[in-house]
Amino acid sequence: MASAPFDFAPLLAPGLPPPAAKWTGRAKYNFIGGNNDADEVPVDGLIAAATAVLKREGATLATYGLESGPLGYRPLREFLADKLKRTAGIACTADEILITSGSLQGLDLVNGLLLAPGDTVLIEQESYQGSLTRLTRKGINAVGIPLDRDGMRIDAVAAALEDLERRGMRAKYIYTIPTVQNPTGTILSEARRRELLKLAQAHQVPIFEDDCYADLIWDGRRPPALYAMRDGDGVIHIGSFSKSIAPALRVGYIVARWDILSRILPLKTDAGSGALEQMVLAEYCLRHFTEHVPELTRALRAKLDTLMEALAEHFGTAAEFDEPKGGIFLWVKLPDAVDTVKLGQAALAAGVAINPGPDWSTNKAYGKNRLRLCFASPSVQAIQEGVGVLAEVCRREFGVPERIANVERRARA
Amino acid sequence: MASAPFDFAPLLAPGLPPPAAKWTGRAKYNFIGGNNDADEVPVDGLIAAATAVLKREGATLATYGLESGPLGYRPLREFLADKLKRTAGIACTADEILITSGSLQGLDLVNGLLLAPGDTVLIEQESYQGSLTRLTRKGINAVGIPLDRDGMRIDAVAAALEDLERRGMRAKYIYTIPTVQNPTGTILSEARRRELLKLAQAHQVPIFEDDCYADLIWDGRRPPALYAMRDGDGVIHIGSFSKSIAPALRVGYIVARWDILSRILPLKTDAGSGALEQMVLAEYCLRHFTEHVPELTRALRAKLDTLMEALAEHFGTAAEFDEPKGGIFLWVKLPDAVDTVKLGQAALAAGVAINPGPDWSTNKAYGKNRLRLCFASPSVQAIQEGVGVLAEVCRREFGVPERIANVERRARA
Repeated sequence: MASAPFDFAPLLAPGLPPPAAKWTGRAKYNFIGGNNDADEVPVDGLIAAATAVLKREGATLATYGLESGPLGYRPLREFLADKLKRTAGIACTADEILITSGSLQGLDLVNGLLLAPGDTVLIEQESYQGSLTRLTRKGINAVGIPLDRDGMRIDAVAAALEDLERRGMRAKYIYTIPTVQNPTGTILSEARRRELLKLAQAHQVPIFEDDCYADLIWDGRRPPALYAMRDGDGVIHIGSFSKSIAPALRVGYIVARWDILSRILPLKTDAGSGALEQMVLAEYCLRHFTEHVPELTRALRAKLDTLMEALAEHFGTAAEFDEPKGGIFLWVKLPDAVDTVKLGQAALAAGVAINPGPDWSTNKAYGKNRLRLCFASPSVQAIQEGVGVLAEVCRREFGVPERIANVERRARA
Repeated sequence: MASAPFDFAPLLAPGLPPPAAKWTGRAKYNFIGGNNDADEVPVDGLIAAATAVLKREGATLATYGLESGPLGYRPLREFLADKLKRTAGIACTADEILITSGSLQGLDLVNGLLLAPGDTVLIEQESYQGSLTRLTRKGINAVGIPLDRDGMRIDAVAAALEDLERRGMRAKYIYTIPTVQNPTGTILSEARRRELLKLAQAHQVPIFEDDCYADLIWDGRRPPALYAMRDGDGVIHIGSFSKSIAPALRVGYIVARWDILSRILPLKTDAGSGALEQMVLAEYCLRHFTEHVPELTRALRAKLDTLMEALAEHFGTAAEFDEPKGGIFLWVKLPDAVDTVKLGQAALAAGVAINPGPDWSTNKAYGKNRLRLCFASPSVQAIQEGVGVLAEVCRREFGVPERIANVERRARA
């Protein structure tokens, strides 16, 4: 045989993303991604759940879909139907819930249901990077809707829908993370929810509601889901256990009326999501979810306080932010001179990983001097030290923040 | 708000598959799918593994990718590198293995890497339905290569490659399940493997090797993988734990050189495959895989004998088959008069689920009177009874098999 290595280059599909770099481990001060607090993973509870459920039903792993069929492990869907009723006001049956491999698969499936290249969708101007990149890769025109402290601005939604209508177009959906928005941490007010639903109905545009952070609200006051307020009519809802239990468990779900879910299900060609994770989660959550979440939320809130204090100490008034109403992220504005993409590169070299704003916005100029910090994953000490290093790098690269006297350090805390 | 229900119909993406029907449970005699023997799920071992690994590393579930990065849980990749070396002759490092959500995600990722609508691939004429439907949905021209008792016919591969070359075309890959082929249960001989690799090299067409049944060989004599015989040059290899441990655990893997794996990895946008399943599998397999597989294989072999006896008893010479060399499936030929799609519908009404041949072949006419039976999942009693019912239905619908005297019953066993 010839010894020249095989050349795959002429065979590759068009439009592939660039190659991955080899993984070299995590940064010492890791403020990126949707990682969570290692101390709050309920390890003992998961062990007990795994033992109990495997002892009782382990043999069912021999069958795709266990004894539950293609929608996913029935006890988990029944837990969710009950939980969504209690916490989000959603009245649905277990047969209106499809378990997915994380809410990311939910995104893919809903996009597969509705989107074709050239389509238009509305999306919060600042939004989850994974949602934005999916739209870009599918060739979708994503119209960004600005946010304020109460979430998506409804006047901007109305204007965008009217503008599209004038041009003879119709958005395929309005994507929103209404409850603990990523990255801004806002909660869409109930009044705005009503207005949004009215607009969506008037323009016959469905709402795609991503509620994957909605369990983590400081004061526990979760507003009714958009899905609940319309009894599921014209709304598709997705959620996840990544934020409430553990991100490395890849278990999410889609809630939709059966006429829609029956169109989504054939797109899920993976022979089911991982059954062991579904079984263990169901067994754990049925007993402990209600007590676990407030404990997790208290720990996250304490870390947010640490982060806000550290920013005040090291950045002073140079770092502006609104306090998020829950979740694991703080969205921070730095002075106009700062370019957070460049800051991110320089910070990484110093051991600090951050998410630059432009990756989390449809408006790259608006995102330029903004960044997202995850406070859930780093330890209290790492938050304090990491913000100090970040401030040093920022000062060196952009001249801000100026040195701050100790007397000012609590000005913004 | 208006009360007419929201109409999604005008918004659906083009080319969606038909809606799913509601799941109504499994057939009483269930010979479909790649389900396995419930008695052989190593429940106690999995409980011990879950307990040990969660106690030791449970807190790492707080981070996407655990401490292992995006290729998957490192101890599982290290187990695989060692196992593939021992059993398939593959020399690869843990960094040339990507853990996937079942081998189905492996199919999707490799297809995403290489295929665009209108492309051509070569595939065994009888092949896994999930592979065939993926090609159809992507608009791929799948050229079927006939099989005989030694697997894919190499003369037919050569002819197909030459025919394409004459037409100025080049196949994107040759997809093969060389070791315990699905559905035929054949093993591609080592001589044919050499010829196939030579042809692929000469025509500069990569080989896509799906080895997901390769652990389950009656005599344990697994030939070297195609990947091994070329040291990975021009070959992409996928595998799974679905058949060797349990199908509802969705854990598979891709083996490829880094220059290829680095192009596949960015297509895997799911934030990692389920970590608990990876952790439990690694913990279990490191200790028990080597002893578990022969035990499972013995149980499967006994069920195959039961099935072959039952077919001989109830169908006599009307059911023809070659004994598979391993695995969980028997590929059966019935008399020409039988249409297995119609037989399948009538049998289902009588409580027997079978996979009709046309779903498993690029040649629908060839598949018309053939069917695939999974013998791993039904109990010995269900196999015996189910084949009896199937024969009754077949006789009623197609006049075959004729009634068989008891003296003939072991004629084919």
